[in-house]
Amino acid sequence: MTRVLITGAAGHIGRVLRAGFQGHYALRLADIAPQAEAQAGEEIVTADITRLEDLLPAMEGVDVVVHLAGIPDEARWERIRDMNIEGCYNVFEAARQAGVKRVVFASSNHAVGFHRRDRMIDNTVEPRPDSRYGISKVFGEALGRMYADKHGMSVACIRIGSFRPDDRPTAPRHLFTWISHRDMVQVARRCIDYPDFHFAVVYGVSNNARNRWDNANVRYLGFVPEDDAELHAAEIEAMGKAEDAREALFHGGFGCLVEFDGDPLRID
Amino acid sequence: MTRVLITGAAGHIGRVLRAGFQGHYALRLADIAPQAEAQAGEEIVTADITRLEDLLPAMEGVDVVVHLAGIPDEARWERIRDMNIEGCYNVFEAARQAGVKRVVFASSNHAVGFHRRDRMIDNTVEPRPDSRYGISKVFGEALGRMYADKHGMSVACIRIGSFRPDDRPTAPRHLFTWISHRDMVQVARRCIDYPDFHFAVVYGVSNNARNRWDNANVRYLGFVPEDDAELHAAEIEAMGKAEDAREALFHGGFGCLVEFDGDPLRID
Amino acid sequence: MTRVLITGAAGHIGRVLRAGFQGHYALRLADIAPQAEAQAGEEIVTADITRLEDLLPAMEGVDVVVHLAGIPDEARWERIRDMNIEGCYNVFEAARQAGVKRVVFASSNHAVGFHRRDRMIDNTVEPRPDSRYGISKVFGEALGRMYADKHGMSVACIRIGSFRPDDRPTAPRHLFTWISHRDMVQVARRCIDYPDFHFAVVYGVSNNARNRWDNANVRYLGFVPEDDAELHAAEIEAMGKAEDAREALFHGGFGCLVEFDGDPLRID
Amino acid sequence: MTRVLITGAAGHIGRVLRAGFQGHYALRLADIAPQAEAQAGEEIVTADITRLEDLLPAMEGVDVVVHLAGIPDEARWERIRDMNIEGCYNVFEAARQAGVKRVVFASSNHAVGFHRRDRMIDNTVEPRPDSRYGISKVFGEALGRMYADKHGMSVACIRIGSFRPDDRPTAPRHLFTWISHRDMVQVARRCIDYPDFHFAVVYGVSNNARNRWDNANVRYLGFVPEDDAELHAAEIEAMGKAEDAREALFHGGFGCLVEFDGDPLRID
Amino acid sequence: MTRVLITGAAGHIGRVLRAGFQGHYALRLADIAPQAEAQAGEEIVTADITRLEDLLPAMEGVDVVVHLAGIPDEARWERIRDMNIEGCYNVFEAARQAGVKRVVFASSNHAVGFHRRDRMIDNTVEPRPDSRYGISKVFGEALGRMYADKHGMSVACIRIGSFRPDDRPTAPRHLFTWISHRDMVQVARRCIDYPDFHFAVVYGVSNNARNRWDNANVRYLGFVPEDDAELHAAEIEAMGKAEDAREALFHGGFGCLVEFDGDPLRID
Amino acid sequence: MTRVLITGAAGHIGRVLRAGFQGHYALRLADIAPQAEAQAGEEIVTADITRLEDLLPAMEGVDVVVHLAGIPDEARWERIRDMNIEGCYNVFEAARQAGVKRVVFASSNHAVGFHRRDRMIDNTVEPRPDSRYGISKVFGEALGRMYADKHGMSVACIRIGSFRPDDRPTAPRHLFTWISHRDMVQVARRCIDYPDFHFAVVYGVSNNARNRWDNANVRYLGFVPEDDAELHAAEIEAMGKAEDAREALFHGGFGCLVEFDGDPLRID
Repeated sequence: MTRVLITGAAGHIGRVLRAGFQGHYALRLADIAPQAEAQAGEEIVTADITRLEDLLPAMEGVDVVVHLAGIPDEARWERIRDMNIEGCYNVFEAARQAGVKRVVFASSNHAVGFHRRDRMIDNTVEPRPDSRYGISKVFGEALGRMYADKHGMSVACIRIGSFRPDDRPTAPRHLFTWISHRDMVQVARRCIDYPDFHFAVVYGVSNNARNRWDNANVRYLGFVPEDDAELHAAEIEAMGKAEDAREALFHGGFGCLVEFDGDPLRID
Repeated sequence: MTRVLITGAAGHIGRVLRAGFQGHYALRLADIAPQAEAQAGEEIVTADITRLEDLLPAMEGVDVVVHLAGIPDEARWERIRDMNIEGCYNVFEAARQAGVKRVVFASSNHAVGFHRRDRMIDNTVEPRPDSRYGISKVFGEALGRMYADKHGMSVACIRIGSFRPDDRPTAPRHLFTWISHRDMVQVARRCIDYPDFHFAVVYGVSNNARNRWDNANVRYLGFVPEDDAELHAAEIEAMGKAEDAREALFHGGFGCLVEFDGDPLRID
Repeated sequence: MTRVLITGAAGHIGRVLRAGFQGHYALRLADIAPQAEAQAGEEIVTADITRLEDLLPAMEGVDVVVHLAGIPDEARWERIRDMNIEGCYNVFEAARQAGVKRVVFASSNHAVGFHRRDRMIDNTVEPRPDSRYGISKVFGEALGRMYADKHGMSVACIRIGSFRPDDRPTAPRHLFTWISHRDMVQVARRCIDYPDFHFAVVYGVSNNARNRWDNANVRYLGFVPEDDAELHAAEIEAMGKAEDAREALFHGGFGCLVEFDGDPLRID
Repeated sequence: MTRVLITGAAGHIGRVLRAGFQGHYALRLADIAPQAEAQAGEEIVTADITRLEDLLPAMEGVDVVVHLAGIPDEARWERIRDMNIEGCYNVFEAARQAGVKRVVFASSNHAVGFHRRDRMIDNTVEPRPDSRYGISKVFGEALGRMYADKHGMSVACIRIGSFRPDDRPTAPRHLFTWISHRDMVQVARRCIDYPDFHFAVVYGVSNNARNRWDNANVRYLGFVPEDDAELHAAEIEAMGKAEDAREALFHGGFGCLVEFDGDPLRID
Repeated sequence: MTRVLITGAAGHIGRVLRAGFQGHYALRLADIAPQAEAQAGEEIVTADITRLEDLLPAMEGVDVVVHLAGIPDEARWERIRDMNIEGCYNVFEAARQAGVKRVVFASSNHAVGFHRRDRMIDNTVEPRPDSRYGISKVFGEALGRMYADKHGMSVACIRIGSFRPDDRPTAPRHLFTWISHRDMVQVARRCIDYPDFHFAVVYGVSNNARNRWDNANVRYLGFVPEDDAELHAAEIEAMGKAEDAREALFHGGFGCLVEFDGDPLRID
Repeated sequence: MTRVLITGAAGHIGRVLRAGFQGHYALRLADIAPQAEAQAGEEIVTADITRLEDLLPAMEGVDVVVHLAGIPDEARWERIRDMNIEGCYNVFEAARQAGVKRVVFASSNHAVGFHRRDRMIDNTVEPRPDSRYGISKVFGEALGRMYADKHGMSVACIRIGSFRPDDRPTAPRHLFTWISHRDMVQVARRCIDYPDFHFAVVYGVSNNARNRWDNANVRYLGFVPEDDAELHAAEIEAMGKAEDAREALFHGGFGCLVEFDGDPLRID
């Protein structure tokens, strides 16, 4: 049975994957926060990703790391740097030292958030981060690419859309960005199980009618999402939360506007 | 007169630009290392880029920052992190706080070094760093892109090829990667003087017969390199330093092989 | 409830949309010809699109204009000019003056009719009209693009395939070009309801097995056609109406041959 | 000797071509305005392009029409319609009726003026007119394409940049858009003399250092411009006429802002 | 009823098509080997494709040739040359002499086998044969293209994936390359029945979850495969036949390694 | 000194290369026809490329083979097959057996001759031979690609345009296809001397004003042609040999029309 280490296992996505992976993999669940106690086939470990020495024992015997730990949205530089840059480096480096064959990295659509929403994008568009958080995801993808190319690790980066703890899309932007829990489990499992890839970037998004992210280049992974945010469209509209006009210009939405003091006119 | 701050002004490239900029700009020359004393139109300042507080006064009244400071090739993670990630962040952030309108960032071909040399590349290819150094350049470019998009700064990234202190190409790879001193000055000056761009990535390379980097997308900058390493081809051949077969597979050359323990077969 | 003005509401497509829109929108139905009397939620107005003064009152309070009025196929220049150029200009201009937010324009595949059928086409191919009629559709799309860009109007252009009053494909070419009534209603409704686009060109075509028009770039509209002309293939074949060999060369089919005296050899 | 009819021969471009064509072609010079009297090899004719009956005799015996007549910049709809739409139709139609083999049409960069200046463009980009004037040029190009495809006429469209009566670039935008008199003559002559093309769109622009229009697809025409607006850069800068920030966003510059009341944010 | 000649009718694919075509076409079944006796609507003929004189009578009255005969995998040059080059030439030439309107040619994925598997491929990628066998398929496709262009024949080339006599995928590579019997019949029938194409290249592959061959450019053929090798994934994995690491680099798999003595590093 | 074997050394191109290579390489000159006697640095050998046993000794000690031997234009199938298919196979196979590191293959524009001349082409367009001769060149290129990929040979294919024994362009088509003797020598020398390529396809064409073949993808070879057929344009025009209208449709010109009985309308 494939042994999978999840970093950030106590987080929202971590808990969903933990449940979804039950019975499919031997799980080692790492977090700095407390976690629900181990079930059959599970190990609970405490690890701080900013400490390489914490990570090395956690990697022992692991086949695949699913790296979720880190700051999940915009934050001040020092936190991003420590958790999403230093921490991410430590995870890849510890994995390499432990001989782990594959890392599945939780990247984000915010790595390409400043691309114009009027144009659909695939996984070859240039990095265009919308935040320090987004920059840390560009960094993580670049790190992954180098560990693949230079150290022979198999690396997948999932550019996750809008994952909601309560599994419901609740904002206009979610109509194109939502990823349901079961689609999140599916895409992660495809990235773990697929026998042989070198480096892959896949958008983690449900089969939304309004989807604007194109996974054609990684169609071979066999990720076929099952849910569609459109079924919630009426409900969302009824909430009356219209998206800000400037947010609506970019794939990254709200992420683009945090601290924004630029000239939106120049963002081509 | 445009006031230009050069970080890393005491380095190899810094000194060449200092000389080439004489008389064209008001220069503020920053480095942590000692520098030749100020000439007319020059100010010498000491600044450590790992300290934001050092950088803020150096930015005052500056129109354009040419950011050269940092580790210029592969190094251990801590140094790359401190100088090329933290330091680079500080430079962009200090520039933003000081209201600097433009940053010209010394990126590197090693940001895309693991692309196959058999294919010519332009400035839209995916990041494919060949080293921690290369990753830090991907990081710097992403940072620049965000400061352009989010904070309205004008940003140019020069993916510098092989700059040689003695201004001569001396290795087989230089035949396609060499940039002469005057071409380096030219490209930097075009990036400083060009009146209006949002974000640009340009390869810093001479007009080498064997050039494999395509600047067509930024032709409008008017960078027309004048030198050609081919004139030194016989001389280089006479040195008998054949490139390693695996190095020769990738644009990044030697950068790709440092610490390499991967599977070159998988690098498509 | 969204108020929709249909121009040309008495025409073949107009009547199908009228029926299909019932209960979904407040309808204002404009034509120069007599129309069936108003049902609940409908207003009937008489308007000549060649008269801007007729159009202005018709636009009052309208959210979206669906502009169908005009000459529906090849005709002499004066009629095309008056109805499809002057008339189309008047509709967009009146909409602008009345503050209408969106225009959905009935364009046609004949705007790109002289593209070779051997190559599939998407919505970025160059204009290549097959007739004066087709030219007027290129004009209308260009007009729409300018009203979007310059005046902030949201504009969709539907390049309608073969719409048949009796809702059945009856000729060999229809096997790839047919659009059923319900798919016509669907695509028009998606263009009306979609909350936020700037400018979009979408092919109005059913889910025909032999379809040669690619809507991938506007997949986000959520237009998912339900019918397939292939179900009528045997029936069509039984009619024995083979397509003329020269017609069969081009997407526009018969439209290309009307008055043709050129050199088909030169049409690359 | 090739007989060339110039419409609009009394205009700024017309007079420059007249002089530049001297001795190379038999010239018939048509305008509604008075013209300098005929030299050897020239005929002067008076023709109103809004009257097909005026044009037919002017076309007799003509090999190539260079169609310059029309409104040369933004104007109210009625004038654009009469001169640039009706007039343009008449010219192509009269040429067809008279058996003229080739039409060289003076199109304009304003046919694609709302494309973002940050992206270089070639001759395959989608129409994106910045004005009623620009729309009329999209119309003229579409007309030309149909006369080529359907009626076997050879048609070239020159998307003219900034032609200056005094042959000097005088505004910041001219640094990328300027076309000198001799380059204008050259491109027109290449379009007249080139033995065999079906339909071609070429940007009429000098060899400016900052050029952003790519003629690579029609390189075969052999148009090699000789002048460069950069030589006038200091002079232009000294005038202190900075381009408006919003103008500078688009290829069309000032053309985009006339009557502008849209949302520049949405122009991707 | 369309008369179809199958060459190589006694082979594995030939027998499956024979059965699948029953009742749909008048069949002439040619092979050099003995065949099961003729059923209603069938004729059995003996023909050696290396003898043009054998083929001419077999072509009489034929509407479509399905050319399967030849060496089905790597072999020494003389056999490939005689059967797959000379034989293939004879089949096309005999078809031309007999006035046959269409040839459906059994090409192979091995015509493009040395493309990197990490990149999905469509039908426009450059030839990159992995064997003498693959070269003969490039030859056959080129021959077909010339017979289409020069002699007006309609030609389809099916780049067949992994066809298994027992209709089951049994190796890891089959998970992306498998074509089931009924999908093979379907694609062949679409190529026979489609009323009008000039030249088409289509991948003969089932609807496998891991499919890496893109038929989007020939979507109009209406080939919609029904089977998916993924349903056999567990079974295949249980066999424990891992693909050789070097095989796994290329679309052609094992075909690439036969007699391989090159430098896999250089295959970009 | 690099030892170069030229096959077909007695032919028109062979003699020009022989002269141009003098003093640069040790030459072995092979042909079945008599040759001028050996000069210093030359060896004359007699070899029939249809006999592998003739070729093996000729390959001994050779660094680079320049393979020119074969039928230089359209011929009946048996001659093409024996000389250009069997002969070409023998040359590559003998080179492999002898450990030759590089083969430079004289391919031809007729390998892609049926592409429409109205579209410029580069070295990635699909094979589209205009003759049996052209098919043999597609075969040779495919062979070269496989010897590169599978056997680690370095292979260049020069798609030669119009080489004239008297070094003068004399027909309208030559204005875009001509290659002068010195440009032929240059391109061959670049292919011999360039230190390191795996597989390259380069158009052998002078710097003609009307050139329609794009070498941008192999710019790194440093082939910079010096001559331009345009200087002979007046002279050619004076000859009054207009190109046939159908010839003028395709890159291959006359090659397309030999034995043509197809439907030029269908050649997209």
